Amino acid sequence: MPDLPLYAGVDIGGTNIKIGLVDDTAQTVAYESIPTEQENGPETAARRVAEALGRLAEKAGRTVEELRAVGLASPGPMDLKTGVLLCPGNLPEWHNTPLRDLFAEATGLPVNYENDANAAAYGEFWTGAGDRFDSLVMVTLGTGVGGGIIIDDRVIDGAHSCGGEIGHIIIDASDAAPLNSLGIRGTLEGYCGSYGVVGRANAAISDRFVETALRDTVEGGEELTPLLIANAAEAGDEVALCLVMETAKYLAIGLVTIVHTVDPEAVVIGGSMTFGGAGHSLGERFLAEVRDQAKARLIPSLRDQLVIEFAKLGGRAGYIGAAGLARRKFV
Amino acid sequence: MPDLPLYAGVDIGGTNIKIGLVDDTAQTVAYESIPTEQENGPETAARRVAEALGRLAEKAGRTVEELRAVGLASPGPMDLKTGVLLCPGNLPEWHNTPLRDLFAEATGLPVNYENDANAAAYGEFWTGAGDRFDSLVMVTLGTGVGGGIIIDDRVIDGAHSCGGEIGHIIIDASDAAPLNSLGIRGTLEGYCGSYGVVGRANAAISDRFVETALRDTVEGGEELTPLLIANAAEAGDEVALCLVMETAKYLAIGLVTIVHTVDPEAVVIGGSMTFGGAGHSLGERFLAEVRDQAKARLIPSLRDQLVIEFAKLGGRAGYIGAAGLARRKFV
Repeated sequence: MPDLPLYAGVDIGGTNIKIGLVDDTAQTVAYESIPTEQENGPETAARRVAEALGRLAEKAGRTVEELRAVGLASPGPMDLKTGVLLCPGNLPEWHNTPLRDLFAEATGLPVNYENDANAAAYGEFWTGAGDRFDSLVMVTLGTGVGGGIIIDDRVIDGAHSCGGEIGHIIIDASDAAPLNSLGIRGTLEGYCGSYGVVGRANAAISDRFVETALRDTVEGGEELTPLLIANAAEAGDEVALCLVMETAKYLAIGLVTIVHTVDPEAVVIGGSMTFGGAGHSLGERFLAEVRDQAKARLIPSLRDQLVIEFAKLGGRAGYIGAAGLARRKFV
Repeated sequence: MPDLPLYAGVDIGGTNIKIGLVDDTAQTVAYESIPTEQENGPETAARRVAEALGRLAEKAGRTVEELRAVGLASPGPMDLKTGVLLCPGNLPEWHNTPLRDLFAEATGLPVNYENDANAAAYGEFWTGAGDRFDSLVMVTLGTGVGGGIIIDDRVIDGAHSCGGEIGHIIIDASDAAPLNSLGIRGTLEGYCGSYGVVGRANAAISDRFVETALRDTVEGGEELTPLLIANAAEAGDEVALCLVMETAKYLAIGLVTIVHTVDPEAVVIGGSMTFGGAGHSLGERFLAEVRDQAKARLIPSLRDQLVIEFAKLGGRAGYIGAAGLARRKFV
């Protein structure tokens, strides 16, 4: 049997670049992560990625000539039409560079460029939690809230490369709703991103009549984090548990809105802030609450139809999806 | 020059069925509206539509044999995969009927079936306010709030035929937000549908210290309507104007959410409740407020990019879009 075609998936983050060689069946045949060294600029990074592709091909017992294309993913904002990275906060030395062309030159391969959250959604669609569906919305919970929408094997990346910016949808029209980093009130990120959750925790603590172990943490000099809140909830702290369940409710409200807009077969929830995620008791309670709260707000045609699940690929979704998008485009 | 190919657009409403013959350049060559007579059932209606197609072809100096296909639009819910109309409130005698096949049989033509709001969006995309764009979101304001999303010449009709159900997106997570007809709190329809606007007006009147001519209307025995509120606003009533501008704000919040989800080139606002619409002073103030309030909440990449305009085709958008979708599918 001849070897399957190979694609390189490259997922650029502020700290690390994840690089995988992925075959036609979505199997990773070789993988490594290298430091981004963003301060050295994107040309250097492109050269180091090209070198890594050679190492990875060798590791897999293949040759770099067998690579068909590169799938490149990075944080936004970007202009996908021209392949230019604009001004992501975590890559200050890379602003306004023609990232797609730089990587094409360094690797000698055709490059498909995509937003990292959209690439991760495509990864889950191709070979993760969404592999049995024709359409999917992925939401990624972390410091920020990101997302990606896949419909019939196509990424909804938008007229201005802003498709799936679901952290910035507005779930609360109130003038008292929390602000996000862009100065927009009442966004999904403002409620379900880590600052939103921690902000609600600090607000709860500030009421002296609220009894919670979280206050001891803060008075002990530690700053609250979603992980500390999750730990307190798992240890039986009612206030911490309430904060987690509230987060599920707000997430469900955002998901209902997205689902009533694009009506996918499934919603997949990933990222670092899933309160333990699949297989953990708190994570499973969180997911059950998201499902219940969504069901209570979905239109009847969708109430028993929509699937909501945890993502499966973890931090690998980005490079796998990037490779899958390159495969889709260049085969 | 030979005649251009013709398509029939059929837009079924609770009261009337709009039928137009539309050519390849989106020109309507003949049009009529017939009463739906929903109580006589869908088979009768399909037969009467088939008869109308003969009359219309004759009126246009063409023959019915020149028709390539029928584009059928109706209110939802429906199952677009099977072509079955499910249970729309305004067509009680038509529930659970294979509408697409009934019309194919009656007309002897291939039929493309679509939700009426999506068809209207496609009409504006093809030949209305969106004809210079590759993607568009249309929102229709009336008793309900409907919508349709077109991306790269495709309708986002969803995995369960519920794409673009944007009246049911949630813009207010508060437990005190108004309920809509489906029992969902804080929906765009609850704020921007006619019941939502009238509800806020009645709430304003109930405060005896609020001075407004709307109270005289109600105390005179008339029920408030969006039109009465618009008239009062145009006559200088501050409270009525405030209600109109509030509606613009809530609409903008919903639009920002939809735009951050699918990132279209343009948003088009249509329907009967646009406060006079294009060319009317109140309508133009309403639109300007929608634009300002949206701009204040859009992410920077979109702030100066997104186009927001009034729709152009009025009540004709549905049958024109339905014909356009039949053209797209069957050419």
